[in-house]
Amino acid sequence: MLSKRAQETSKNDFLLINFLKTMSSSYDEATNPQGYVNLGTSENKICEDIWLEKITEISESADHVTADILYYYEYHGMSRVRKTFSKFIEDRFKSKMKIQEEKIILLSGVATTINALAFTLADVGDVFLCPTPAYTRLKYDMLDIGGVDIYEVPMFDDESSDDPCKMRSDVLESYLLKAKQRGLTVRGVILTSPSNPTGKVYTKQELADLMEFCKREDLHVIFDEIYALSTQGQGCFTSVLSMTIPDPDKTHFIWGLSKDFGLSGFRCGVVYSHDVRVINYLQKMATFCSIPAPTQLLINDILSDTEWIDKTYFPTYYTRAKENHKLVKDVLDDFKIPTSYSCENVIFFWMDLSQFLNERTKEEEIKLFNKFMDTGLYICPGTELLCPIPGWFRLTYTYPKRDVEEGIRRFVAVLTAIRKEDSFERLKQFQS
Amino acid sequence: MLSKRAQETSKNDFLLINFLKTMSSSYDEATNPQGYVNLGTSENKICEDIWLEKITEISESADHVTADILYYYEYHGMSRVRKTFSKFIEDRFKSKMKIQEEKIILLSGVATTINALAFTLADVGDVFLCPTPAYTRLKYDMLDIGGVDIYEVPMFDDESSDDPCKMRSDVLESYLLKAKQRGLTVRGVILTSPSNPTGKVYTKQELADLMEFCKREDLHVIFDEIYALSTQGQGCFTSVLSMTIPDPDKTHFIWGLSKDFGLSGFRCGVVYSHDVRVINYLQKMATFCSIPAPTQLLINDILSDTEWIDKTYFPTYYTRAKENHKLVKDVLDDFKIPTSYSCENVIFFWMDLSQFLNERTKEEEIKLFNKFMDTGLYICPGTELLCPIPGWFRLTYTYPKRDVEEGIRRFVAVLTAIRKEDSFERLKQFQS
Repeated sequence: MLSKRAQETSKNDFLLINFLKTMSSSYDEATNPQGYVNLGTSENKICEDIWLEKITEISESADHVTADILYYYEYHGMSRVRKTFSKFIEDRFKSKMKIQEEKIILLSGVATTINALAFTLADVGDVFLCPTPAYTRLKYDMLDIGGVDIYEVPMFDDESSDDPCKMRSDVLESYLLKAKQRGLTVRGVILTSPSNPTGKVYTKQELADLMEFCKREDLHVIFDEIYALSTQGQGCFTSVLSMTIPDPDKTHFIWGLSKDFGLSGFRCGVVYSHDVRVINYLQKMATFCSIPAPTQLLINDILSDTEWIDKTYFPTYYTRAKENHKLVKDVLDDFKIPTSYSCENVIFFWMDLSQFLNERTKEEEIKLFNKFMDTGLYICPGTELLCPIPGWFRLTYTYPKRDVEEGIRRFVAVLTAIRKEDSFERLKQFQS
Repeated sequence: MLSKRAQETSKNDFLLINFLKTMSSSYDEATNPQGYVNLGTSENKICEDIWLEKITEISESADHVTADILYYYEYHGMSRVRKTFSKFIEDRFKSKMKIQEEKIILLSGVATTINALAFTLADVGDVFLCPTPAYTRLKYDMLDIGGVDIYEVPMFDDESSDDPCKMRSDVLESYLLKAKQRGLTVRGVILTSPSNPTGKVYTKQELADLMEFCKREDLHVIFDEIYALSTQGQGCFTSVLSMTIPDPDKTHFIWGLSKDFGLSGFRCGVVYSHDVRVINYLQKMATFCSIPAPTQLLINDILSDTEWIDKTYFPTYYTRAKENHKLVKDVLDDFKIPTSYSCENVIFFWMDLSQFLNERTKEEEIKLFNKFMDTGLYICPGTELLCPIPGWFRLTYTYPKRDVEEGIRRFVAVLTAIRKEDSFERLKQFQS
């Protein structure tokens, strides 16, 4: 009765199921103290108060409601909104070239940009190489509607504690060969940069090597820089836009407001591509995934106020993020829990909890995940983020401080109980 | 370099090309008196002033900006917004059954709902029967991304002046057979009801016959009721929701805010379906074509204010529409131009201008279209709306009165010149 493609679609994934589960009974100190604390979803809710103030100010301003919110407009972005984005991206991503508004496509969310690029660049059954661990939804964003899959390229060496996720072209090359040997058509590489979930910030050299590899192999490359501005002004992050791009027509940049601005409800994703044919097709797709005019103009008002962004938003965001970061890091250090990279670069910790597993298996990892869930804490197990080695977890710290504190209290309770049990077991063994 | 499906996509269609052309230089009495008057696009701009007042009032209200506009939400519609829609649809479409919020899917525009249903109900290469004349974009909304085509079923008998577009199951049946003989898989019927562009309002019996036909042939049927509430409270319109539906799982209702509320910029489309599998897949698609939270809540505030809708919006809309309708109708009557149906049922006139053609051909129709364009008037030629008989045009009258007046001035000028020329030709023939 349904189409074949609708019948073939995936079930809800782990991340979505648990997001919905925590939503159904969210922790609130006063009204629902037993509810779930969600530190598992990668979301940024740390600046709610200043956002509400800012949006109220915009809503109440005299010139906010204009006739052009009412009628048909350019679906891929109203001209003045794309102009604002081009200026914003040029400045914030230290772009080497002028960012042209004609090459900007706005779509309803970053997930949508990935779906749209999958459609534009690949056919049903084709694949994109994807270094793992990775944000699992990359897979479904390409697959659910577009029928394009990712081909996982494990790039996680946790013996190398200083740089476990080093970008390695030789590994990409060997997996490209494997995929081809399986008869798959590989259309490109997709990379979240900085990495979700590891927090890895790729060096200029790594990005250059990746782009050279893609050019050599005639592959597209999609840089999902959705966490770029959460690197807290440390200057360590390199955007692909700030570099010399060897194959511009096949190099695609995406970004959005969900993480760096914590505005996931605004469903705002942006693509910057060079190939006019890609642009043209994305414009056509935009008919079906446009950001409505009222939200576009609200976004425009926000991004145009660079003074507020520089003097209020980012300083507040970074200060609060650092406080929460310290709060969590101190506890992790107490437990001697290894974390990858500095973890100040993104909005989550990627941490090795294998010492709390009986065995380093997916089953044991999920057992630990369930222990956390039983105390009302959701943090995300690494194998569900395509991590090739079990035992790692992602914990997002850009939630309101009280939520993070309560989450960490539950986290500590679970780990302490496991330690006690272990000591007791060891004691029993010793005594027997 | 692009995917095959991206390469195969259609060029911009006639309607879009001319919409963009008129947008590039719009008529304005003061600033651009030579600009285009667009009465070709089916849009409703008649209540701009009261919309701006209303939206300003909402924007400035104390409880307008809430935290839930900021974050992830249910992409297919926030629960309270779907609740508002279920109440609204139940009341306004005189629904026979209770409209359940669980079966409501909100997507970014009615075009998007058609794209999504094409994806859900049909595979690449499949077709939907579509009685013509019809809104040409139905074709591209199904085809551009979904790869599903319409199969035109001519249902226009202009010899039968009282009901040229009568719904005929026997014609549907013969075209179903033709399509099957060509090896096509027919998945259903799609119908805009009331009809765009003819203004035909289908009777209860016609709708019942159509549904029986679809049930008998095991076909889906999509009722696009986007003009339903523009029937100006005449009570002549029958919604499929108000009827006994023989095959609920295969009967799908769509509506949106673009026409009846004149809010095409809000990109708000709604699907009501009964089959839980259809609902589930549409929910998945909604990830990629969701209405952002700020716009959803603005829509919610509008639709919740039933007092304003009943006492201010609809009375103003209908009064102004009737004024413009009369303004145009008087001129058409002067020229003895036949129009189909009462034409008060929708926002446009469907009129027979064949007396101004040298021959009843598409070429002559386009020649006349070009004469209008040369004077700066865009009205839509019927063959571009899949009309099987050349010579018909669609003229939208729900534009600001001054635009309609200027458009009609140009319309009269073109037709008068043709008449003069004709008389002169006849005179010459007579004298020679």
